[in-house]
Amino acid sequence: MIKKKIFNDPVYGFIEIPNQLCFELIEHPVFQRLRRIRQVGVAHYVYPGAQHTRFQHSLGALYLMQEAISVLRGKGQEITEEEATGSMVAILLHDIGHGPFSHSLEGVLIPSISHEEMSLLFMKKLNRLFGGALDPAIEIFTNRYPKKFLHALISGQLDMDRMDFLRRDSFFTGVVEGAINSDRIIKMLAVDQDDLVVEAKGIYSIERFLTARRLMYWQVYLHKTVVAAETILVKIVQRAKQLVALGDHSLFASPALSYFMNLDVVENEEEMLNHFALLDDDDIMVSVKTWADHKDPVLSRLCSNFYSRRLGRLMIRENPFSQEMCNSLINRVSDEYHLSPEDAAYFVYTGKLFNNAYNISSEGIRIQIRPGETQDILQVSDIENLAGLTKLVEKHYLCAPKEFLER
Amino acid sequence: MIKKKIFNDPVYGFIEIPNQLCFELIEHPVFQRLRRIRQVGVAHYVYPGAQHTRFQHSLGALYLMQEAISVLRGKGQEITEEEATGSMVAILLHDIGHGPFSHSLEGVLIPSISHEEMSLLFMKKLNRLFGGALDPAIEIFTNRYPKKFLHALISGQLDMDRMDFLRRDSFFTGVVEGAINSDRIIKMLAVDQDDLVVEAKGIYSIERFLTARRLMYWQVYLHKTVVAAETILVKIVQRAKQLVALGDHSLFASPALSYFMNLDVVENEEEMLNHFALLDDDDIMVSVKTWADHKDPVLSRLCSNFYSRRLGRLMIRENPFSQEMCNSLINRVSDEYHLSPEDAAYFVYTGKLFNNAYNISSEGIRIQIRPGETQDILQVSDIENLAGLTKLVEKHYLCAPKEFLER
Amino acid sequence: MIKKKIFNDPVYGFIEIPNQLCFELIEHPVFQRLRRIRQVGVAHYVYPGAQHTRFQHSLGALYLMQEAISVLRGKGQEITEEEATGSMVAILLHDIGHGPFSHSLEGVLIPSISHEEMSLLFMKKLNRLFGGALDPAIEIFTNRYPKKFLHALISGQLDMDRMDFLRRDSFFTGVVEGAINSDRIIKMLAVDQDDLVVEAKGIYSIERFLTARRLMYWQVYLHKTVVAAETILVKIVQRAKQLVALGDHSLFASPALSYFMNLDVVENEEEMLNHFALLDDDDIMVSVKTWADHKDPVLSRLCSNFYSRRLGRLMIRENPFSQEMCNSLINRVSDEYHLSPEDAAYFVYTGKLFNNAYNISSEGIRIQIRPGETQDILQVSDIENLAGLTKLVEKHYLCAPKEFLER
Amino acid sequence: MIKKKIFNDPVYGFIEIPNQLCFELIEHPVFQRLRRIRQVGVAHYVYPGAQHTRFQHSLGALYLMQEAISVLRGKGQEITEEEATGSMVAILLHDIGHGPFSHSLEGVLIPSISHEEMSLLFMKKLNRLFGGALDPAIEIFTNRYPKKFLHALISGQLDMDRMDFLRRDSFFTGVVEGAINSDRIIKMLAVDQDDLVVEAKGIYSIERFLTARRLMYWQVYLHKTVVAAETILVKIVQRAKQLVALGDHSLFASPALSYFMNLDVVENEEEMLNHFALLDDDDIMVSVKTWADHKDPVLSRLCSNFYSRRLGRLMIRENPFSQEMCNSLINRVSDEYHLSPEDAAYFVYTGKLFNNAYNISSEGIRIQIRPGETQDILQVSDIENLAGLTKLVEKHYLCAPKEFLER
Repeated sequence: MIKKKIFNDPVYGFIEIPNQLCFELIEHPVFQRLRRIRQVGVAHYVYPGAQHTRFQHSLGALYLMQEAISVLRGKGQEITEEEATGSMVAILLHDIGHGPFSHSLEGVLIPSISHEEMSLLFMKKLNRLFGGALDPAIEIFTNRYPKKFLHALISGQLDMDRMDFLRRDSFFTGVVEGAINSDRIIKMLAVDQDDLVVEAKGIYSIERFLTARRLMYWQVYLHKTVVAAETILVKIVQRAKQLVALGDHSLFASPALSYFMNLDVVENEEEMLNHFALLDDDDIMVSVKTWADHKDPVLSRLCSNFYSRRLGRLMIRENPFSQEMCNSLINRVSDEYHLSPEDAAYFVYTGKLFNNAYNISSEGIRIQIRPGETQDILQVSDIENLAGLTKLVEKHYLCAPKEFLER
Repeated sequence: MIKKKIFNDPVYGFIEIPNQLCFELIEHPVFQRLRRIRQVGVAHYVYPGAQHTRFQHSLGALYLMQEAISVLRGKGQEITEEEATGSMVAILLHDIGHGPFSHSLEGVLIPSISHEEMSLLFMKKLNRLFGGALDPAIEIFTNRYPKKFLHALISGQLDMDRMDFLRRDSFFTGVVEGAINSDRIIKMLAVDQDDLVVEAKGIYSIERFLTARRLMYWQVYLHKTVVAAETILVKIVQRAKQLVALGDHSLFASPALSYFMNLDVVENEEEMLNHFALLDDDDIMVSVKTWADHKDPVLSRLCSNFYSRRLGRLMIRENPFSQEMCNSLINRVSDEYHLSPEDAAYFVYTGKLFNNAYNISSEGIRIQIRPGETQDILQVSDIENLAGLTKLVEKHYLCAPKEFLER
Repeated sequence: MIKKKIFNDPVYGFIEIPNQLCFELIEHPVFQRLRRIRQVGVAHYVYPGAQHTRFQHSLGALYLMQEAISVLRGKGQEITEEEATGSMVAILLHDIGHGPFSHSLEGVLIPSISHEEMSLLFMKKLNRLFGGALDPAIEIFTNRYPKKFLHALISGQLDMDRMDFLRRDSFFTGVVEGAINSDRIIKMLAVDQDDLVVEAKGIYSIERFLTARRLMYWQVYLHKTVVAAETILVKIVQRAKQLVALGDHSLFASPALSYFMNLDVVENEEEMLNHFALLDDDDIMVSVKTWADHKDPVLSRLCSNFYSRRLGRLMIRENPFSQEMCNSLINRVSDEYHLSPEDAAYFVYTGKLFNNAYNISSEGIRIQIRPGETQDILQVSDIENLAGLTKLVEKHYLCAPKEFLER
Repeated sequence: MIKKKIFNDPVYGFIEIPNQLCFELIEHPVFQRLRRIRQVGVAHYVYPGAQHTRFQHSLGALYLMQEAISVLRGKGQEITEEEATGSMVAILLHDIGHGPFSHSLEGVLIPSISHEEMSLLFMKKLNRLFGGALDPAIEIFTNRYPKKFLHALISGQLDMDRMDFLRRDSFFTGVVEGAINSDRIIKMLAVDQDDLVVEAKGIYSIERFLTARRLMYWQVYLHKTVVAAETILVKIVQRAKQLVALGDHSLFASPALSYFMNLDVVENEEEMLNHFALLDDDDIMVSVKTWADHKDPVLSRLCSNFYSRRLGRLMIRENPFSQEMCNSLINRVSDEYHLSPEDAAYFVYTGKLFNNAYNISSEGIRIQIRPGETQDILQVSDIENLAGLTKLVEKHYLCAPKEFLER
């Protein structure tokens, strides 16, 4: 009798691990690390349920990939066993390069490497360990595999990544309006001339998917308080690194974090990767807690604010904030907190919000009118400006301590 | 100890009947009749789960009304006990005038009375029975009560009626994309200068509500096969009434239906109401089943088609179908079925679909920017053409037997 | 591209029709009739949501059968395509012999044929129509197929029938405590020496299944008010048949019901079957409504009580009620209603309740300790008297009009 | 307009904070700490979704308390505003004394103080801060308040604590069989002679509750792998404390944890409390990760096993394991790992499992037959040995590395 490992999952019920390779990859410490990386960074400060991890998301995406492969095969599309396994491994590992708090600290701890690049580094490392078994996965992941639709299942407008994260993040935040019907969308997928497309009768589900995605951006990923919490965390790491750069060698850091406090340029990739494999949310949290008592007034104030959830207030506008307004606020903070203007700028800052930071993509969603004939959803939908749901929205924010910004 | 009647409801869990008046109204045979009126007519032909009734919907709307009153009171809005009871009775009875298959046969069985007018007739009748206890309810229902926001809870862009039917119809059809978060929308309601408005932070839920509503129209209420089934039912009743008008006095009709087969103009309203109070889906179903063996070839073919679910095919277009196309189809049907062109027209016909047949309304949804300042959602939303979701869409359909319309 | 018919189902999401044979059987009018047979008879009088039909249940059981087959194959059990189709057809049609209001009127309308026998008659009839394609299904259904575990999936302690009806009835009644995790139970199924067994780690799910089943009996199937409504329906049919037997040839009956009002012994099975194929809940409802005005005081009172939901009160005891108590009540009713004692007995009667009327079975549930070694769940569970959950409970009831039974 | 803070909760939808006192308590850093204490310790090693925290649980219990108070008041039971607030504060803070990984490390880090005692210490501390506003809460929490049923809502067979944790843990683990219908149970609560009782018609829900609770014990709280993970964590802390006691002053510990590594007897309660207020799961996780490289072979092996999820195997029996069996295993481990037998005993050990470790209680559940008359559920239920569900089950386990215990 064949036994397969099954995970309980509150979202899909059960997730079966399809084969031995996936099983062994999941068991590997590098993958287990994802158990300690929260999927939506600090969003749990606003949505207490959002403690779910990249580990769960990766398993969930693996589940959906199995569904998608089964649906496409059921419609007559050939997918070999090797291709199926390759796609499953690729989606399983697509986020393995995420660091502490996922996107929140991306580009801050390790300046010049995106999480996708890091994922690829880990895949290659694991591939050596597994004797080349990940070759197809890597080809699909990097879009060098001939059947392009397989890559589209990993990374594209309707990939299994966002299919899972939208549904999962909606589930754990309790923002039920963001729920998408991944079952139905996947049932509607088809392959047409090597493109991943959606059958015409699935169009309403896609419209719903686009609305849900937009809603999740504004209600969760770009929620004022979430952004306030994320940016304070960025400021904390920047300040701590600055102190170290200025010579504060006694600054506490958990051993796994230590290495990155001194890292400016990655010179030894292998070494960096080994350290990165040990790093997770816990290192940040413990260090921040400890720094709340640090003698540097900027670092300690930032950290104790973060810990006791005294977050800044965020103003959002269509247009940039004027330099005068910022300076004036910085000066007031500088006076009040007895800090230099440079240091006060750790508490008053501006930035941009994009509603598709996670999904930058120029491709559209193709609707299959009939086999062989597809159109972009923007042309087919009778919502006149469905485009309104898909375009890049850019807004400007200014963040400052609450007492300085009357509502 | 005070005991209140509680209904189990698959959608909300439990529905408590708030007071004795509501309880007695529910017990009344006129209300019990709603147990035998399907909420979404013949939609169960496409969505087998959609067997739910106006009885369940009316209880559901009563539940939401209790929630809404509690939320508005919690925000400081005064609502007296009498006003609360009035609103609850009004929503409980708002659909009591629906006849067999709800909207599907509206205007066909009883030519000149809408279901809202019929509801009012029943309310007045019950009011006499209950010694005037329904006075406030009737004032609110007919929008003659000073606090206008109470009427808006019964009938308006965000009334408890559509709040319940969208969620309930989504639930029972299994079209989960149509689910709305009624809890959250109601939590966001407020009253501003006697208008029912939505707090600014609820704007995404409203956008979602509008998308969901639109989706339910096209996926359920105006689904091709649902419309095909509805229109065949209309044709059946029209043909049967025509036969009676032409002198076929032996035509079977269940006793409750009999009266309406001969009814052209309502002369005695009281008498009509008494008969109407006995009429439900079952009368139609049994009569249609019996007519499948009638000697009139049009009636029997329509009925046996309906019963064995051999429904016509619906073509949908932006523009009207040409008279030539119709005539040509009618002629082919006439030849094939050995019918006169007039009779063949029972099988080939055109019509219009409106995406807001259920919700005709010129008012907008007001968003409360801050107390005292509200704006229409179309101005506030950053979906450029949210209007696309709210405008009236009109489409044209042509229906004919499948064998005459190649796909 | 292969297209398969998909049904939306509120319980499982989507139900795919696996092959052409199943599709054509579903399209057949005999199967379509199940759309008009409520799954749980008159339980909607207590649980308004319980309007679901045998049609939905049969599709649901078909869905679970597909899951079960896939799970067993995944564990290495051979099931040929023919066997799979046979099992699917057998479960699809297992309830096709149900008449109006399912169990409520079983044995009343047609005295001597159970619904299982009727199902077999229909299967044989359809088999002739489909040129023998149902042979494997019939062998499996009647337990004459060599692989016995296939029959156990249709009819046994853990068959797909009760797996679906418990979950579905729980869903539509809103009695969420009765929900079972059919997914998990099916995942735990295995075949051991041709027995359908449950893997050891599934034991808690089975205990939960047994508790849920027991709860559904007492909360739904044997709920006092449900039984009161069911028995009044039985009395109505019995009285109407009695009146006809006594010569009342003018008694209204819908055409489809007419035949059965005069039926005592089935002499022409084919003829009976043809009439039965036209009969559904609607015939009963329309006739009962009409009879509420009949001149016979017993029939009219029973029917108007049923229609306006003035149901009798049910007392339940461990021991039988005394003849004296019954007689005394009958006499009081006889006086009050001006009826002979024989006629008064239509309003006062006793009977028995069994908690497993639906599931009589002597077999146990086998738990697989390890391949080749199974034990009865009663020996394995550490709930000492799990037997308490599985044994036959028999209770006695007395039903009488409320005004004669003080609480 | 009155605005209340609302939390999104995936389990109940929305949780409203009822008053200013509760709001300020939630904002306090001591309460915020619960965001970093996992509700079910290391159960996420088996159920990846189980990352939920004591913070969510405490809010959930607060929600249920509001429901219960509203239900009891609705049945005529007087509960003053002060009593309501007292009960709400008491349930909000009932778990505030939990340390890292909740029960898993209880009694290990701080030898002689239970989490309930610690909660009381924190309540008293907060009471001083809030000028005595917590007096009623403390009286209710410690069962010194005259109305005893209020305490029963905090701590008793049917308290809001277990009502929430069973439902929540079921939700996040995905063990749906463990779900209880808290809504219905709460709707069935009543007060009879100052006892918290359940109305007779709620008996099936209670039976279901008891089955669910038992199932959650064996499927989650006492799941073999969960216990294996918990006990290894205990061994890690014990070993680390031993090393410190033996003089290893260089052993890394996060600053917050440091204090407790040296703590044997609590001499300065205030000081201990201040340190405890800083301690959470993160401190343990970071320290364990760091210790995986420690030079002590016992500590490093334990820690790296825990981190890479190489957990011991657990055997479970009705009777104790023999000393010989243990010694023999210890000797084999001692040989294989080159450790003294004393050190090898960190990898081979025995213990007991109790199915109601969380719920030790001698009281029964009272069912209200009619006002003034209650009975224990064991006498009322017709499950003969419902007792089987409620009695204390004690089992023995032996844990050893997998390679030494063939399955």
